[in-house]
Amino acid sequence: LKRFAIIGHQAGPSGDFSLNDLPGSGGRIDILCRCANSSMLLSHGVREDVECYLVLAGDPEKQKTVRFSGSSIRSLSPDERSTGALIKKALSIPCGDVFRESSPGISVRQGGLKELLQEFSFAVLDEKGEDIRDTDRLPDSFLLSDSRNFTEEETGLISGLPAYSVGPEVLHADQAITVLLNEIDRRGI
Amino acid sequence: LKRFAIIGHQAGPSGDFSLNDLPGSGGRIDILCRCANSSMLLSHGVREDVECYLVLAGDPEKQKTVRFSGSSIRSLSPDERSTGALIKKALSIPCGDVFRESSPGISVRQGGLKELLQEFSFAVLDEKGEDIRDTDRLPDSFLLSDSRNFTEEETGLISGLPAYSVGPEVLHADQAITVLLNEIDRRGI
Repeated sequence: LKRFAIIGHQAGPSGDFSLNDLPGSGGRIDILCRCANSSMLLSHGVREDVECYLVLAGDPEKQKTVRFSGSSIRSLSPDERSTGALIKKALSIPCGDVFRESSPGISVRQGGLKELLQEFSFAVLDEKGEDIRDTDRLPDSFLLSDSRNFTEEETGLISGLPAYSVGPEVLHADQAITVLLNEIDRRGI
Repeated sequence: LKRFAIIGHQAGPSGDFSLNDLPGSGGRIDILCRCANSSMLLSHGVREDVECYLVLAGDPEKQKTVRFSGSSIRSLSPDERSTGALIKKALSIPCGDVFRESSPGISVRQGGLKELLQEFSFAVLDEKGEDIRDTDRLPDSFLLSDSRNFTEEETGLISGLPAYSVGPEVLHADQAITVLLNEIDRRGI
């Protein structure tokens, strides 16, 4: 199983954004939509061995995490608006500390990065990290930030985690996921 | 200069689509939006040495081509809807056989694949092509299709062109462009 987790620093947990203005009303939730799609989608289907965790960290005290699970997703369209609608639906249902399904393969819980770090061993995507092509053993779980840098608190939580980069240029998070998955595909892992 | 051309087989030339329904009303113009963005955008700016040609081939007799030029684009947002609005604006202005600018760095003309092939030497992105990592000399101009295969007429026009693939999995066109640009970045070309 491969995992990607993306921190949306401005995206709130309430889901009260407009599908007609994902970047503005959604606190750059368009970034999270693209990351979910680049994690899950191939040209002719879904990556069944990938999970994508979108952390809505816009309100630090009330964070939520939406999980896309390739093994059970039944339909996912590649356009941002459709994925935004799925996230909106997930955020609209009551949830506690345990993931609760809002659509097939999509679930939501309270909590954010801290909880994820207790469950999985992430590597961090970072322009100063080791090149993914140069490492013998590629990690299976990657943590990315949205258009903002990790906060001071997050930096504390992730200090010591291995860091990897995807090449000489700094890419958007969804682009970095696409490049990562291509390397994983090539290694057949 | 690197060039990407993407054929939108269902996207019409009139621009009378709704920004609230790019896939349906726009004939999968969401694909062209994503391809323009993956061609042009880095995390912190625009790729000044890239041109992206979107061919609106939904009406074979009245095709148009919208060109994004990284060297002169002044603002481009990474969300699909913003790029859809720029394409809509380009399609709304009268144009002839020569590119006419509709926004800074974005222009439009009549004509499609046939005209492009007369101007540039394209390689075709094709799952059966040579792996881009295995070739000594990477081409600088790539032709891609949207979610549909090339038509019989297009296949005739492009027969004989070199073909390249980006890896073991078949990706969406915008994902393939991201992987291609990563290989180009790494070679420093």
